[in-house]
Amino acid sequence: MTPTMARPGGRSAKVTAAVHRAVVDLLAAGEPLTVPQVAARAGVNATSVYRRWGDVAGLLADTALVRFGTSSAVPDTGSLRGDLLAWGAALVEEAGRPEELALLRAAVAAGPADPGAPERVESACSACLVGRSSQAETILATAQARGEQAPSPTRVLDHLVAPIYLRALFGLPAPAVEVLVDLLVDRLVDRLVDPATARATSSPRR
Amino acid sequence: MTPTMARPGGRSAKVTAAVHRAVVDLLAAGEPLTVPQVAARAGVNATSVYRRWGDVAGLLADTALVRFGTSSAVPDTGSLRGDLLAWGAALVEEAGRPEELALLRAAVAAGPADPGAPERVESACSACLVGRSSQAETILATAQARGEQAPSPTRVLDHLVAPIYLRALFGLPAPAVEVLVDLLVDRLVDRLVDPATARATSSPRR
Repeated sequence: MTPTMARPGGRSAKVTAAVHRAVVDLLAAGEPLTVPQVAARAGVNATSVYRRWGDVAGLLADTALVRFGTSSAVPDTGSLRGDLLAWGAALVEEAGRPEELALLRAAVAAGPADPGAPERVESACSACLVGRSSQAETILATAQARGEQAPSPTRVLDHLVAPIYLRALFGLPAPAVEVLVDLLVDRLVDRLVDPATARATSSPRR
Repeated sequence: MTPTMARPGGRSAKVTAAVHRAVVDLLAAGEPLTVPQVAARAGVNATSVYRRWGDVAGLLADTALVRFGTSSAVPDTGSLRGDLLAWGAALVEEAGRPEELALLRAAVAAGPADPGAPERVESACSACLVGRSSQAETILATAQARGEQAPSPTRVLDHLVAPIYLRALFGLPAPAVEVLVDLLVDRLVDRLVDPATARATSSPRR
């Protein structure tokens, strides 16, 4: 009934944003991530953080889910190749930003740090990938709707997302996205062009 | 001049093995990695650990260098495809072992944990990959010596190592190595089989 209670969404959204910001800031600064530290930096009560997010793994998963969400627009260039090139370039840029890289590292590290809560840990890791998987599926569905042959989402994870993220995580230079996309798209073109059909088209027998 | 001094290699090798073992055990148990904890578990003096390895980043890099070294034999099946299949299967097994996975996670996490020493951090990460890169180069050189067309080591990193390691790090099921290798090897075969040559061979004009 207080003014604050009258717009719970607004206040809750502000708390959430402040907590996510605190998680990212602490990680990017290389400081240890604890609930009291996150609460102090966000200017909220630690009890509220524990009640809402449970623990550090929960905080990490929720922050990653939002940061690696689907808020960024999926490219629509008119071709699968163009869409994958633009999307891959965005992934390279994202994985090169200190805040996103710190979140990826923390999610990966979370595994052994919290062996008692495997579901939580899995959700921290998968939270980094779920938004990108969803975007990949959109790009592939759009290509199919256009009548283009499209690889599976698994192929895109393995041959576009994995090289970009693995190189970022291990401090290697970013890959050339065009070279990665070539392998995914050219391979499909090769399959589409059946040798017999190509022969019949290019050198008709009669 | 003491018996111990007379075989410094033997004693030093034992200390090194005990320290590496302690690092892996602490990581796999999800316990925090500190020089005093490593020294205590290895039964050596912390001062010796500081003197020899410097800090946690140095310990991690040296342990990873040995654990992900080139001690395992590179497969020699008689074909590039067979070698990559066997080697990929070994990587999947390795990345699925709790100790190696804990080392990979710790190397990835080391980035933001030690922002003051970028060279050390890079060496902890690259220590996980340097042995595998060297093995990949051996496999590819053997294929070329046989007269086979071989992809670049970068391609093998991006399309075989990256999917295997990324999925392990993010807790996803291991990829089908055969499917990954197909993309690397079939792609080369496609390039080798020039359409004009294939046409001339399969349907001679005269």
